[in-house]
Amino acid sequence: MISSTPHSYSDGDTTFIGRLVHDDAVSGQRPGVLIIPAFGGLGSFEIERAEELAALGYVVLAVDYYGEGAQASGPEQAGAWMSALNADRPLVARRITAAFEELRSLPMVDPARIGAMGYCFGGKIALDLARTGADLRAAVSLHGLFDAPPMPRQTMKAAVLACHGWDDPLATPEAVLAFAAEMTETCPDWQLLAFGHTGHAFTNPNANSAGMMYSPAASQRSWDNLTRFFADKLKV
Amino acid sequence: MISSTPHSYSDGDTTFIGRLVHDDAVSGQRPGVLIIPAFGGLGSFEIERAEELAALGYVVLAVDYYGEGAQASGPEQAGAWMSALNADRPLVARRITAAFEELRSLPMVDPARIGAMGYCFGGKIALDLARTGADLRAAVSLHGLFDAPPMPRQTMKAAVLACHGWDDPLATPEAVLAFAAEMTETCPDWQLLAFGHTGHAFTNPNANSAGMMYSPAASQRSWDNLTRFFADKLKV
Repeated sequence: MISSTPHSYSDGDTTFIGRLVHDDAVSGQRPGVLIIPAFGGLGSFEIERAEELAALGYVVLAVDYYGEGAQASGPEQAGAWMSALNADRPLVARRITAAFEELRSLPMVDPARIGAMGYCFGGKIALDLARTGADLRAAVSLHGLFDAPPMPRQTMKAAVLACHGWDDPLATPEAVLAFAAEMTETCPDWQLLAFGHTGHAFTNPNANSAGMMYSPAASQRSWDNLTRFFADKLKV
Repeated sequence: MISSTPHSYSDGDTTFIGRLVHDDAVSGQRPGVLIIPAFGGLGSFEIERAEELAALGYVVLAVDYYGEGAQASGPEQAGAWMSALNADRPLVARRITAAFEELRSLPMVDPARIGAMGYCFGGKIALDLARTGADLRAAVSLHGLFDAPPMPRQTMKAAVLACHGWDDPLATPEAVLAFAAEMTETCPDWQLLAFGHTGHAFTNPNANSAGMMYSPAASQRSWDNLTRFFADKLKV
């Protein structure tokens, strides 16, 4: 049976209220996955994905990166919160590292088999965790943003899969080329899966504006690749 | 049981000796797949892939595009043959159209459910078949070349999946951008799966030169995506 409970942790300054989701019928140490939400903060969409991954045998910590489990009231507030946090990438790294350390400290989690995945701004944060050189096996960005933080480049331990809508107005072809060059320098195993005629937010059934549109096909294809990538990297 | 026999067909001027591979325990009309070989001509590598696809329920025609089943004696001859044929892209289109029409004319094949896949120069030829606007459902390029033929652009019926090594010296990032722009204009459903630290010929266990190196991971990932793509597009 899938257990899903609020789960608090801290980076020393801020308390975060994430959600811990796992199958309580399974015993022994399991691989762990961080799910990092889109810019609105942790909500039902990411918790449902956490439940799907838990059913596959992962212990999932759905991440709160704003603190106190805050959820934006709408896109305007979400945009303002994201901009403020994004302006301090070292803080982003510190907050996602706190979530990573929390997940791998749990007795039911094998600390050597951790993956991270995120949507939109959360995709960037999954990459930022990998960019710290953390002992992470796999990082997946789903319509994430590609700009590297203004910090010294580290060699990554994580393999990276970036699922990307080619028409995403927030991640242009030029940004893709810069990202590929960065990954070639820092990441030992990276993949880009780009979908044509697909914009930002393609996994989000509610996305329906110009450049940000739900795509059932791209959503399914990215999920298929994500689950196989995690099985390959985390279940060995 | 898998049946694998030489299979001759013609474009009117030239006789081709391909190979027809299917499971003779299956009855009724099945989806068909063209396998288009790398620049050396049809050999054991492509015939083994044809057997794998036949075991999944496809009728496979492994293609001869040089005529008379010619196989190059080595890379130098293969390069010369490829260059000569590549210089006449309308002839390439005519030859692959002949193979396509041959496959879909077979009584055991459902002519409305045809896919094409190819390696290296054969990847380009799979794309060139789609570029004719043929009634093809799916085309897969595996470390194929992306340059469009000097012919008027047609709207494609086929969905396209291009599996690409990011470091392929024969298909640079600039060529990827041009291909993405072309696909955005002509192809209703296209995907690019790019592998980092991967060059040309990544599916070929014998490739071991600079820029052309076997990658078991990229080979497996591309095959996983190819088989799911064909199942999605051809088995419905």
